[in-house]
Amino acid sequence: MIEKKLDIEVLSIWDDAKQMLRKAEKEGIETAWDRLMQQTPHCKFGETGVCCRLCTMGPCRISKKAPRGVCGADADVIVARNFGRFIAGGSAGHSDHGRDCIEALHAVAHGETEDYTIKDEDKLFRIAAEVGIETTGRETLDVAKDLAADFFENYGTTKGKSSFISRVPEKRQKIWADLGITPRGVDREIAEMMHRTHMGCDNDAANTMLHATRTCLADGWSGSMIATEISDILFGTPSPRSSQVNLGVIREDQVNILVHGHNPIVSEKILEAVQEPELIALAKESGAAGINLAGLCCTGNELMMRQGIPMAGNHLMTELAIVTGAVELIVVDYQCIMPSLVQIGSCFHTKMVTTADKAKFTGAEHVKFEMQNGMEQARKVVRMAIERYGRRDSARVEIPCDPVDIVTGFSNESIIRALGGSVDPLIEAIKAGKIRGVVGIVGCNNPKYKHDHCNVNLAKELIKKDILVIATGCVTTAAGKAGLLVPESISMAGPGLQEICGALGIPPVVHMGSCVDNARILQLCGLLAGELGVDISDLPVAASSPEWYSEKAAAIGTYAVASGIDCHLGHPPNITGSELVTNLALTGLKDLVGASFLIEPDPFKAADLLDERINSKRLGLGLEQ
Amino acid sequence: MIEKKLDIEVLSIWDDAKQMLRKAEKEGIETAWDRLMQQTPHCKFGETGVCCRLCTMGPCRISKKAPRGVCGADADVIVARNFGRFIAGGSAGHSDHGRDCIEALHAVAHGETEDYTIKDEDKLFRIAAEVGIETTGRETLDVAKDLAADFFENYGTTKGKSSFISRVPEKRQKIWADLGITPRGVDREIAEMMHRTHMGCDNDAANTMLHATRTCLADGWSGSMIATEISDILFGTPSPRSSQVNLGVIREDQVNILVHGHNPIVSEKILEAVQEPELIALAKESGAAGINLAGLCCTGNELMMRQGIPMAGNHLMTELAIVTGAVELIVVDYQCIMPSLVQIGSCFHTKMVTTADKAKFTGAEHVKFEMQNGMEQARKVVRMAIERYGRRDSARVEIPCDPVDIVTGFSNESIIRALGGSVDPLIEAIKAGKIRGVVGIVGCNNPKYKHDHCNVNLAKELIKKDILVIATGCVTTAAGKAGLLVPESISMAGPGLQEICGALGIPPVVHMGSCVDNARILQLCGLLAGELGVDISDLPVAASSPEWYSEKAAAIGTYAVASGIDCHLGHPPNITGSELVTNLALTGLKDLVGASFLIEPDPFKAADLLDERINSKRLGLGLEQ
Repeated sequence: MIEKKLDIEVLSIWDDAKQMLRKAEKEGIETAWDRLMQQTPHCKFGETGVCCRLCTMGPCRISKKAPRGVCGADADVIVARNFGRFIAGGSAGHSDHGRDCIEALHAVAHGETEDYTIKDEDKLFRIAAEVGIETTGRETLDVAKDLAADFFENYGTTKGKSSFISRVPEKRQKIWADLGITPRGVDREIAEMMHRTHMGCDNDAANTMLHATRTCLADGWSGSMIATEISDILFGTPSPRSSQVNLGVIREDQVNILVHGHNPIVSEKILEAVQEPELIALAKESGAAGINLAGLCCTGNELMMRQGIPMAGNHLMTELAIVTGAVELIVVDYQCIMPSLVQIGSCFHTKMVTTADKAKFTGAEHVKFEMQNGMEQARKVVRMAIERYGRRDSARVEIPCDPVDIVTGFSNESIIRALGGSVDPLIEAIKAGKIRGVVGIVGCNNPKYKHDHCNVNLAKELIKKDILVIATGCVTTAAGKAGLLVPESISMAGPGLQEICGALGIPPVVHMGSCVDNARILQLCGLLAGELGVDISDLPVAASSPEWYSEKAAAIGTYAVASGIDCHLGHPPNITGSELVTNLALTGLKDLVGASFLIEPDPFKAADLLDERINSKRLGLGLEQ
Repeated sequence: MIEKKLDIEVLSIWDDAKQMLRKAEKEGIETAWDRLMQQTPHCKFGETGVCCRLCTMGPCRISKKAPRGVCGADADVIVARNFGRFIAGGSAGHSDHGRDCIEALHAVAHGETEDYTIKDEDKLFRIAAEVGIETTGRETLDVAKDLAADFFENYGTTKGKSSFISRVPEKRQKIWADLGITPRGVDREIAEMMHRTHMGCDNDAANTMLHATRTCLADGWSGSMIATEISDILFGTPSPRSSQVNLGVIREDQVNILVHGHNPIVSEKILEAVQEPELIALAKESGAAGINLAGLCCTGNELMMRQGIPMAGNHLMTELAIVTGAVELIVVDYQCIMPSLVQIGSCFHTKMVTTADKAKFTGAEHVKFEMQNGMEQARKVVRMAIERYGRRDSARVEIPCDPVDIVTGFSNESIIRALGGSVDPLIEAIKAGKIRGVVGIVGCNNPKYKHDHCNVNLAKELIKKDILVIATGCVTTAAGKAGLLVPESISMAGPGLQEICGALGIPPVVHMGSCVDNARILQLCGLLAGELGVDISDLPVAASSPEWYSEKAAAIGTYAVASGIDCHLGHPPNITGSELVTNLALTGLKDLVGASFLIEPDPFKAADLLDERINSKRLGLGLEQ
């Protein structure tokens, strides 16, 4: 398959990645970078968003010679429709994950499972009370029943608003109401986005883009937020703990199982199973020293945040983890799991197991996880992995480096606890300019860009400027590998951050979880704005997704902006074929929602741009720059 | 814009279309055919479905040199994902229309509007009882409240099945349950389709296609069906009545208003307004003889079915209706409204008015219709039209022909009434081979095919073979213009149909409504199967959409097949880049759901193919061929 040779040195900033890329090349294993080369140059119509396939009068492509599709849609309408569907895909992913979490809570509450329980009862009662459920003197499971029922309604038509709308500052709620973008129900907004983008519905690009913001807000303030809160209730609210990252967490002498995907419901059971003495004994009988569980992507983040399970790698490391030759089994739930993992696994002894009916992979073994059989299925998967260990070809094993230490587990609850019970010390530090601002760096990798170059360097530049960085998703691993997720990394930060983080004993880059956990950042912004009596758009905060690739990242960026948070992207979505839509994203949204996107591939320039935005926000609040 | 000259004679079978195309050419007005020429040749990647733009690692295009996208997805996965989103768009369109109908019923029930009322109380009580709502001795509005609440739940997560599941034969329900495709909630299936098609979720094409059937079934047996039933409750259940079709229904001496789109909620109020003496007087003051209302597309079908309002044209006639120069105003709701209508309107005095926030058109005037202001807004729109009449340039008016008579209004209720209270006479006629089978010909036009050539000729061929034809959507106008929608057209039918239709005084092509009203056909199939104690797939029935273009048509075809009804399409959706998906559609589905698609552009060959399928079904039932 590989026709042209890759220049491996420029593909990643990491030694573990480069070593595995060289191994892959030597062994003739195709990776995402090879396929990117095959797919380059990309179709310009697709890249600029002006190709339309939404009916069979086409497909149509907009050019100077053909400025309208068969129906009469111009570039603006086509770009807006395509972007609308793009973020609908992203919002659906996060939010359907949230629905699965509600189903788990519902099953626990109704006694339909013994495999899952409520781990954080305090949080259950606190969240239930927050959304208006009577909690006084009630049984835990009764409260859980009501909370599940309330959350389900966030997806329907009749409730008409998010359970968490009170987390949104009033000024922001008014902006949304005036624009008609207050999210009603998650599924409703997604379905309406699909309806609007059918031929002959919404043919006003700005109107379509407004509904895109509404759809994404439903994800951010309902779907994602519900996923995070229920995951905490069922599996424990994270608190600071140590862990490790990079391919070095794969253990040569053990049965290695990698969990991949996004939802902790499967991986938490796998974790329990690998700790069972019978299964450990079975592994030892097979000649292994034990069973080693490590994470990939956001399922990895979920397990790391709550349980300190180490992380093997982020998006572009998922294929390379298999290339070590030491992975017996990858068990996945859904989202961001490259279909190529099946092929790469088949080059080794690595088994791929799928668990969700909505995410089967041709060539993988399907072990259906349900609420009622989670533990049983988890044990089955672990036994499969142990069985595979005997097939490992030790001559092909190559684990490229030692793991790097990190600290994880910074939920809002643990942050507030660390601050002494309120966000006031954080606000004081911001007012004093010791923390000049906060930037959440989130999201993915993209083989179009040197792997983790932007993720790492943007974080480094920002902390130098006394800007606290929050990391989630695949940026976590990048920051961790760069040594930024330990308290000692304050040495790389500016004097203000050194003082504050030093006093608190926290790193200047704070890991807040998986990509659905960006909802934690929204909540924190709501809390800060509430304390200060301002809107979120007044806060010296920003978001960034330097190396994003996925529809979910576009949805997250859009809900950030619609929530009043400026959002930097390393590259634009496929919208540049419409000047109207592009201008709306870069400037027009500022007038509407008080925030906008900024595009900059260079992390050093991006840091300056974000610094400028934070400065202007500080100025607006009457604070020193 | 027009660079090459169109050969107008081959574009349509109709004189009114050709005359207007010649006028458009003379006046330099661009139509869909011109734009199709500009867009031809189409992109082969798009046409075969192997282009993927679902993340920004791409866009990717599958070819022999690049058999996988950057993520590793092959042609099968990419085609399935694209088709999944295609039908999600179609299902969302129909079903969101249904939701709007529920909102109307809800508003009426809760006394939130005086502009809408319950016109068919009997049907309200009957449907409520059918879905399990207590009706005995209850107030109308209380029953309506409960019905609206029940229907809303069809869109959510918790209800878990369609209110109309009992309309599905038990054998069919079991097939769905075994395959895991029983539709749970409309929005849920749509959102899950979007989730599954995100990068790294469902990477098994067959699994994705199965969920596509589930999504479409949610449309057919919930979203669309609810739209139909509520529309009948609010505006009256159709019964046979006369009307007229083609551009000749536009009146040279009157203020002409065209209604276009799909939902009767706006158009029914426009109809009331044009009948108000004050507004008629105003029109006369402006020099017109009166106000003439005519329909286009499915809003036209809705008004024609229930109120006998004439139909100016189907999909490809919408632009040409404006070219008459005699249209003062087009008022639209949503779906299938070419954005070009704004441009063509601006070549004349024709005003375009949008009414739904989810379907604005750049350049059109937006008059927002809400439950509380329907009549007021309708009057406003009619006054706008009257004002426009004064700007008409009579020198440019050209109305090409006289209207053709039709009979419409064949709801299931009216059919059963005509049959004497049950479907038994229909079953007897089928058993006796006088009606050898039934084919629903539905859907659109597509400028890639000679306008209405297939729609008309397929209908003509089938009735010759004693196959009763049911028409909905844009096929209605085609059949009407061909003289097939009047009882006299039995002269074109075979002897069996001549006898039965002659005795009943009905045409051999029966108009059952708009495209959401295909749900009426599903219900009728369920009734027939129930009476015979068989599955729908055992019935000598089939569906056809010879000239389809829209995502909704693909969704309809898919729910037909998943309901056990073979479905003919004039051309395939963009799936031919995957042998696996194509084979599944053409043959594989037969094993799974007892029906499949057949593709044939030639209406004469298609009639033979459908005849064969009907023969084999008759054979299966032990009936003579």
